Amino acid sequence: MPHSPEENIAHMTEHDHFSRWMGIEILEVGKGSCSIRMKVKKDMLNGFGILHGGVSFAMADSALAFASNSHGRLSVALSNSITYPNPSKEGDELTAVAKEISLGFKTASYDINITNQEGKEVALFRGTVYRTSKPVIPDNTPQ
Amino acid sequence: MPHSPEENIAHMTEHDHFSRWMGIEILEVGKGSCSIRMKVKKDMLNGFGILHGGVSFAMADSALAFASNSHGRLSVALSNSITYPNPSKEGDELTAVAKEISLGFKTASYDINITNQEGKEVALFRGTVYRTSKPVIPDNTPQ
Amino acid sequence: MPHSPEENIAHMTEHDHFSRWMGIEILEVGKGSCSIRMKVKKDMLNGFGILHGGVSFAMADSALAFASNSHGRLSVALSNSITYPNPSKEGDELTAVAKEISLGFKTASYDINITNQEGKEVALFRGTVYRTSKPVIPDNTPQ
Amino acid sequence: MPHSPEENIAHMTEHDHFSRWMGIEILEVGKGSCSIRMKVKKDMLNGFGILHGGVSFAMADSALAFASNSHGRLSVALSNSITYPNPSKEGDELTAVAKEISLGFKTASYDINITNQEGKEVALFRGTVYRTSKPVIPDNTPQ
Repeated sequence: MPHSPEENIAHMTEHDHFSRWMGIEILEVGKGSCSIRMKVKKDMLNGFGILHGGVSFAMADSALAFASNSHGRLSVALSNSITYPNPSKEGDELTAVAKEISLGFKTASYDINITNQEGKEVALFRGTVYRTSKPVIPDNTPQ
Repeated sequence: MPHSPEENIAHMTEHDHFSRWMGIEILEVGKGSCSIRMKVKKDMLNGFGILHGGVSFAMADSALAFASNSHGRLSVALSNSITYPNPSKEGDELTAVAKEISLGFKTASYDINITNQEGKEVALFRGTVYRTSKPVIPDNTPQ
Repeated sequence: MPHSPEENIAHMTEHDHFSRWMGIEILEVGKGSCSIRMKVKKDMLNGFGILHGGVSFAMADSALAFASNSHGRLSVALSNSITYPNPSKEGDELTAVAKEISLGFKTASYDINITNQEGKEVALFRGTVYRTSKPVIPDNTPQ
Repeated sequence: MPHSPEENIAHMTEHDHFSRWMGIEILEVGKGSCSIRMKVKKDMLNGFGILHGGVSFAMADSALAFASNSHGRLSVALSNSITYPNPSKEGDELTAVAKEISLGFKTASYDINITNQEGKEVALFRGTVYRTSKPVIPDNTPQ
């Protein structure tokens, strides 16, 4: 029996140390989509006192992993691009929403938009994954 | 008197909380270039037990910031792309080398390659920055 | 008096030799958006008998130029990324729709989606432009 | 017997209508690399009188196809990014050099740099391909 998107993502997050460090909270998951939340803390700031671009990327990348693996097939990022329309500061409450924009047999693409508590966009991310033939949750039954 | 690349980067790292959390060590800086080092720790792993793509991105992004701001003009990332030829695991010693591939008046581009202790490439990053007219180190003298 | 989006784009297309070669037809223009059409001809095919990725890129790039210059300020592409969910063949009628996803003072970003006559997506393009302070249509009056 | 890089690329260019329209000349091919040349003609210019960004992209994309298919396995572009350090004008002689930056079993990445007759960089392109298990040249013998 195939696993649900919720089961697949629960399996992934169980050992996801960095998402835990970031304090990522999962609001909603579906087939090919998800919505997650995170609060910007001091340890995430760069030398200019704003959110380090790598942390907003990491948040988007986690959303990409959850959305693409929700189908149950282990999927790995092939390439990504990100732009930062507005900066983010300590205490901001960020929400990342992942949407599937194409789903092929071997690859799939996703848009992840991150907004702050005022609805202002802080990152626009687009990622393409390679869909392996392995399951997200290894079963005891032969594949 | 213009500041040296070393002074500009020292000013940036002084308050760079996230680079400090990652344990980034600066090996070398020059006009438009830098070389930095980091050890992969448990808190940086994703749900598959390998380095979270967001952390390698963050390391590359820090190298981009150091290399582009070394000229003394405050520079901000406009867009980036990254690919991951090989995974990285806990305990790996990663080195990121940033090289300037074009330098215009308003924008500049950089390649950042991250390799592990065996010289294997774990991330290939390319970034474009917008070069503002503000100095990296605010002076007391009028601009 | 500021020029309308239609006037700005008419000025651009007047001398746009390559868009003319591609046979690009402008369906609609607005502030920050446009919709254009093109038919795939034999000269546009690659060695595998499908539309050359460079031509779908060029179509998206033209849509980016029209949408970003519609505001009246001369804008130039800084960086772009494209993915190809499905191939396109000779005789296909392609439509490219450009949508503004962020508009800052110095830079702006756009999504351009190209679909075929069956509504199938053949290219997903994202572009960032640098907005100069020069007008698209040079006036006789001093700036 | 495996085909040589030259044979694989000859097979591809035989029916490559768009590369022929661009007037692309192949200077050199190797395993994972190539060097091609093209002259900028009037039909390639955009509305600002400079080379249309889509044409320099197409040239780089052709170089990507030649370099990635040189190994003999049919390879298709998954994602690309391009930046334009300097404009190009009618009559310019452009050279694109493709270099393999990573080669995995399922995917590979390439850097393609385009320079003009003065050695000035006009485009920096990076592309990732998916390597299918089909041969570039279909043989009569079973695979």
